[in-house]
Amino acid sequence: MQDCIFCKIVKGEIPSIRIYEDDRVLAFADINPITTGHTLIIPKAHAADIWEISAEDLTAIAAASKKVADAIRTALAPAGMAVAQLNGRAVNQVVMHYHMHLIPRREEDPELPMTAWELKPGDMDLIRQTAGKISAAIG
Amino acid sequence: MQDCIFCKIVKGEIPSIRIYEDDRVLAFADINPITTGHTLIIPKAHAADIWEISAEDLTAIAAASKKVADAIRTALAPAGMAVAQLNGRAVNQVVMHYHMHLIPRREEDPELPMTAWELKPGDMDLIRQTAGKISAAIG
Repeated sequence: MQDCIFCKIVKGEIPSIRIYEDDRVLAFADINPITTGHTLIIPKAHAADIWEISAEDLTAIAAASKKVADAIRTALAPAGMAVAQLNGRAVNQVVMHYHMHLIPRREEDPELPMTAWELKPGDMDLIRQTAGKISAAIG
Repeated sequence: MQDCIFCKIVKGEIPSIRIYEDDRVLAFADINPITTGHTLIIPKAHAADIWEISAEDLTAIAAASKKVADAIRTALAPAGMAVAQLNGRAVNQVVMHYHMHLIPRREEDPELPMTAWELKPGDMDLIRQTAGKISAAIG
């Protein structure tokens, strides 16, 4: 979709810190990370949400999420990890291209409000370094 | 797993309000719903979290989530829907059997803290009636 920022990331028209990709799916670092290692997984084909995405792309996202989750555990050894995927502006979906959040969490991390979280730019060096670790841990 | 409440639900040893099932997956109503229509999807085979679940079961969960999401939209016409899946007690996983939350949301619903939400028993008649509507909308 022409004005979709995630479609531009897929096409390489906007730079991103890539962690994993296959034919259907791209995983990259969230540059407004809620926690260190916050990763997004998107379908390469545009779809706004869980209602628009094809079943094939949704299952490809699931398969990729397991690979990335395993790599996050290996690279970061978090205390836990939230998987969140928001559909509709009423639940805080900001970019209208389906995206799954993988949010690793340490014990000391703050509460995460699901429907209104603050977008705060992260430390790009730390984001790049962390994404590199996760990417390297993908088998 | 012997003492797992969700394994007992799968086996029918504990009653549940079933919405959808197939060979690998069961969807049922959350009896402590955050919002009306709050649904859980679990693998029938025990796995604690995203790290333990098999790729096959995880993709089956994704395929089922699309069917249930479509049915929730048909039955309830929510303003949006959050998908949440928590891994580890550090991110508020209460039952240690993988479960994906589908949480439909109306504009007026309150903020949802992801890592500490209150478990509050719902109105069982409303839960049954809503689950019946969702179930009936699954093609």
